[in-house]
Amino acid sequence: MKLTILFGGASFEHEISIVSAITVKEKLSSFDLSFIFCDADHTFYLIDSSKMKATTFSKGEYKKMPQLSLSNGAFTQKSMFSTVEHKNTVLNLIHGADGEDGSIAALLKFFSIDFIGPRVDASVFSYDKRYTKYLCEARNIKSVAYEVLSAGEHKEINTPYPIIVKPSCLGSSIGVSIVKNESELDYALDTAFEYDNSLLVEPFIEGVKEYNLAGCMVNGEIIFSIVEEPQKEEFLDFEKKYMDFSRSEQVLGADISEELEAKLKAAFTKVYSNLFEGAIIRCDFFVVNNEVLLNEINPIPGSMANYLFADFTSLVKDLVSSLPKTSRVKVSYDYIHSISSAKGK
Amino acid sequence: MKLTILFGGASFEHEISIVSAITVKEKLSSFDLSFIFCDADHTFYLIDSSKMKATTFSKGEYKKMPQLSLSNGAFTQKSMFSTVEHKNTVLNLIHGADGEDGSIAALLKFFSIDFIGPRVDASVFSYDKRYTKYLCEARNIKSVAYEVLSAGEHKEINTPYPIIVKPSCLGSSIGVSIVKNESELDYALDTAFEYDNSLLVEPFIEGVKEYNLAGCMVNGEIIFSIVEEPQKEEFLDFEKKYMDFSRSEQVLGADISEELEAKLKAAFTKVYSNLFEGAIIRCDFFVVNNEVLLNEINPIPGSMANYLFADFTSLVKDLVSSLPKTSRVKVSYDYIHSISSAKGK
Repeated sequence: MKLTILFGGASFEHEISIVSAITVKEKLSSFDLSFIFCDADHTFYLIDSSKMKATTFSKGEYKKMPQLSLSNGAFTQKSMFSTVEHKNTVLNLIHGADGEDGSIAALLKFFSIDFIGPRVDASVFSYDKRYTKYLCEARNIKSVAYEVLSAGEHKEINTPYPIIVKPSCLGSSIGVSIVKNESELDYALDTAFEYDNSLLVEPFIEGVKEYNLAGCMVNGEIIFSIVEEPQKEEFLDFEKKYMDFSRSEQVLGADISEELEAKLKAAFTKVYSNLFEGAIIRCDFFVVNNEVLLNEINPIPGSMANYLFADFTSLVKDLVSSLPKTSRVKVSYDYIHSISSAKGK
Repeated sequence: MKLTILFGGASFEHEISIVSAITVKEKLSSFDLSFIFCDADHTFYLIDSSKMKATTFSKGEYKKMPQLSLSNGAFTQKSMFSTVEHKNTVLNLIHGADGEDGSIAALLKFFSIDFIGPRVDASVFSYDKRYTKYLCEARNIKSVAYEVLSAGEHKEINTPYPIIVKPSCLGSSIGVSIVKNESELDYALDTAFEYDNSLLVEPFIEGVKEYNLAGCMVNGEIIFSIVEEPQKEEFLDFEKKYMDFSRSEQVLGADISEELEAKLKAAFTKVYSNLFEGAIIRCDFFVVNNEVLLNEINPIPGSMANYLFADFTSLVKDLVSSLPKTSRVKVSYDYIHSISSAKGK
């Protein structure tokens, strides 16, 4: 089965997308894989499989490889005398901006290229944590209480300390701080506002139980991963998460009751159906007083959360065969014709 | 001032986008305008100003005009010996699919082309009426009660008759029916499901007062249009709305109290700030028992609702000068470099 891994992007998570792509390459070695890299200038390059190592990108060697442009149904490689079309299904593995904000989803949809990954609407509801809260409210999914701060706004924070401060639109813990008291607040806000004009403030719940659950819809049914209890210190900072993106060894399921597992799956289903169709997502939950709270949706998790699935290869194969199809609207000129003929033209 | 009108799209509103573009051409005649047409196959064409008439498109004559492709910062016209870049600010005038669903917004953002129109997130919240309801709930904006029906689902409708049935994702009253009693229901559902997998059912409020208000944010402040009380029969069907898209004569303001006008503006502001920055939108409101309810957001209204503004030309000029800027993330390879050097490579 053919599959194209699309990675890179003009994103703070550009490097971890490269790490993810290298990891997924190993995990999906039974596929006929090709690799398309989106650089920081939004130019696409076809990367030879043998060059899929970090230094190809950090040293700029990719710039010598063939450039691709988007056209109807394909990434196209044009040279003086020939045009080669790359029409495979794409696995969108661009973390953060571009990949998760709906841009790549819209491009691939617009040019009728099938892809694994969140669609435009799903991207908006997961990329911006404010809109994840909107989704929770509308779908009756419990989540942590929050306040929104906007740049340049002078607003009292009502959440009691300790609090956690997050840029609205970044993943991988970038710009996130735990603030234990007011003396630490200004620094945390400055840090977070460097990344975004909008922040979320939430209570920091000490010693909270965390569980991650991944899954995707295949032929109308959600296939779940095991439930993982992630190892953690206070929270994973960028460097630790970075290493996390190269994970490929399957982990053991968390030792939890059937009741809790059912609750986690029910919450996942409320988030997923049918907004995230076409994507393998990971939901990160908190459990507080036996209540499941959604913390975050990762619509393109690091290395596609492969380590949570017993048979990741089969999962991806099944998903490729059941991707949502978008039929393009047929255009008619009935009204213009009728008006023109009424005018006698 | 240069401005490119982008119109067409693979949408049920393709034809009315053409009508809108022809109307806006007349209204913005003091601009240095150019015209880019997106056909049903998602190919872009540069249309000579003198050819901006309906038959150019209905007769397929546009196919003889220069094709454009998207590249970083421009629509690009390539011929054997030259490349011409079209870098003007774009007015996104593609109604419905493509233009209002976030696709065009994502494309223009991805390729760093400035544009008037809703951004990706704003598009998602206005294109799908379910998500407009989510926005209302989250921002405490009153709207009409609703139920969602999905294709293939057998669900009792709890809303008492008469009801109005709408596809979730279409504008211009396409697929919309008023259902007076149960005998009319099946036909209305079948019609609406032809256009979308998801429908909204709302109570049909007979004789409700309707008011439209348009506006956009310029330099941090919302510039409002006059309030219009649209002429109506039961509701505007497609053909009447179609004619509506060619409106260019300024209308008189509705005869309403200052108090009601202030309420409408307050509701508009709750919808707009700052989600719709960069766009001229029209909000259609109902007034029931002196309460303002949001009916619909038109993020790219017909002929840009020019007829609601006293000085549409100045408005567009001011908006072009204060469009939101997106700074692209700079990519570094710090982590890969540090890991490579730790490995001694």
